[in-house]
Amino acid sequence: MPSIDVCFSPELLHLYDLKGKAVVAVDVLRATSTMVTAFAEGASHIFPVMELEECRGFAGRGCLTAAERNGIKAEGFDLGNSPFAYMNGNVAGRDIAITTTNGTRAIRLSEAAEEIVVGAFLNLQAVANHLRELNLDVLVVCAGWKGQFNLEDTLFAGALVERLNDAFGYEHDSALAALYLYQTAKQDLVEFLRQSSHVRRLEHLEIHKDIEFCLRHDVYDVLPVWRHDRLVDLMRVRELES
Amino acid sequence: MPSIDVCFSPELLHLYDLKGKAVVAVDVLRATSTMVTAFAEGASHIFPVMELEECRGFAGRGCLTAAERNGIKAEGFDLGNSPFAYMNGNVAGRDIAITTTNGTRAIRLSEAAEEIVVGAFLNLQAVANHLRELNLDVLVVCAGWKGQFNLEDTLFAGALVERLNDAFGYEHDSALAALYLYQTAKQDLVEFLRQSSHVRRLEHLEIHKDIEFCLRHDVYDVLPVWRHDRLVDLMRVRELES
Repeated sequence: MPSIDVCFSPELLHLYDLKGKAVVAVDVLRATSTMVTAFAEGASHIFPVMELEECRGFAGRGCLTAAERNGIKAEGFDLGNSPFAYMNGNVAGRDIAITTTNGTRAIRLSEAAEEIVVGAFLNLQAVANHLRELNLDVLVVCAGWKGQFNLEDTLFAGALVERLNDAFGYEHDSALAALYLYQTAKQDLVEFLRQSSHVRRLEHLEIHKDIEFCLRHDVYDVLPVWRHDRLVDLMRVRELES
Repeated sequence: MPSIDVCFSPELLHLYDLKGKAVVAVDVLRATSTMVTAFAEGASHIFPVMELEECRGFAGRGCLTAAERNGIKAEGFDLGNSPFAYMNGNVAGRDIAITTTNGTRAIRLSEAAEEIVVGAFLNLQAVANHLRELNLDVLVVCAGWKGQFNLEDTLFAGALVERLNDAFGYEHDSALAALYLYQTAKQDLVEFLRQSSHVRRLEHLEIHKDIEFCLRHDVYDVLPVWRHDRLVDLMRVRELES
């Protein structure tokens, strides 16, 4: 039976051997929720990059550019980090380069893995199904907040552990803690997260609508996976191949 | 109002500024529980050291030496890491040098703090009282297991957050998560921890008696604090001074 484990911060990634594993990179508020939404709205490819300057450079290659720092859209970019900004028909058929405070880092630091999947509550079941098919050991890499533990990514990890409970073992306390926290929280995630630091940070920025949306489960049948230097939607790839 | 925060692993300590803070170093199973027990049994000073060789060197200075690696007493030392080994009248009036897989590391890596207190469930209330008097921002440093998150140290952190709830604010998600987990677990910590990786590791070593003991709350009115190069029991220092 393959195993599922949870890494609470990219700062702890050096403790794990990613070789041969499937990584699920998650930044629920909001980078990975936004990427999932962008693919659902028809984006072709997403280039997650670490630095603002590198991201800016993609504009010359015909990409839309998206950037967030400290919860706010960065100056001079086409898009920020709110999923609603990707719902105006503006991203269909387009490539997007994106850089965010935490989420893009979690993806790029996981490149040694056999497979990287981008996870969010919005595509939770699609991720769970894919992991069952792959049948590899899984590591959920929580983006956290500037290296520190956060609740919302941990709750996603717990939700995934719960969905895979019958087919994956979990040996480490981080997976257990994530599962316990999710089981405590799941009746009302929005209420549970009201106390969390990042939600308070975002509420201050008046984006409560984003938070409620990003906590919805199984909205999109979308599966962003890392291929070479970019994310593609494996659902679309399979559609085109069939 | 001062704040209380929780660092889930020594590997995350670089994210925190310890200056002017009170650190509570915790390794419930079993280093800090054992240190608290040793002081309760009359030990004079405890020297927590990182390496086996350094620890061995203390024998020449008239110290008892204690060493644990991977849950087992290391070869050639006087004591291991079980609190019961310190209860035979063998440590009264003695100095002890100790090295363990995780706990001594959490203490020594926190030396930049204003105060370092050694915490365990066994002396939980003594620690809480001292922190109220100090009135500094608090960081609970969980020893974890080889750098990774563990449940038992997190539950101690949650218990401390609960005890200080009225006088300390907590802003970060790690403190919230610890509190939630403790509130879920506290009716029966032994049962809750039965699933945890470290308890399973220790049960394999047939030291269930140690685990039950280390999870008992408020057994000792003992307060190990870091002074220069060693731990002393502040309760005893105050007694001698008065």
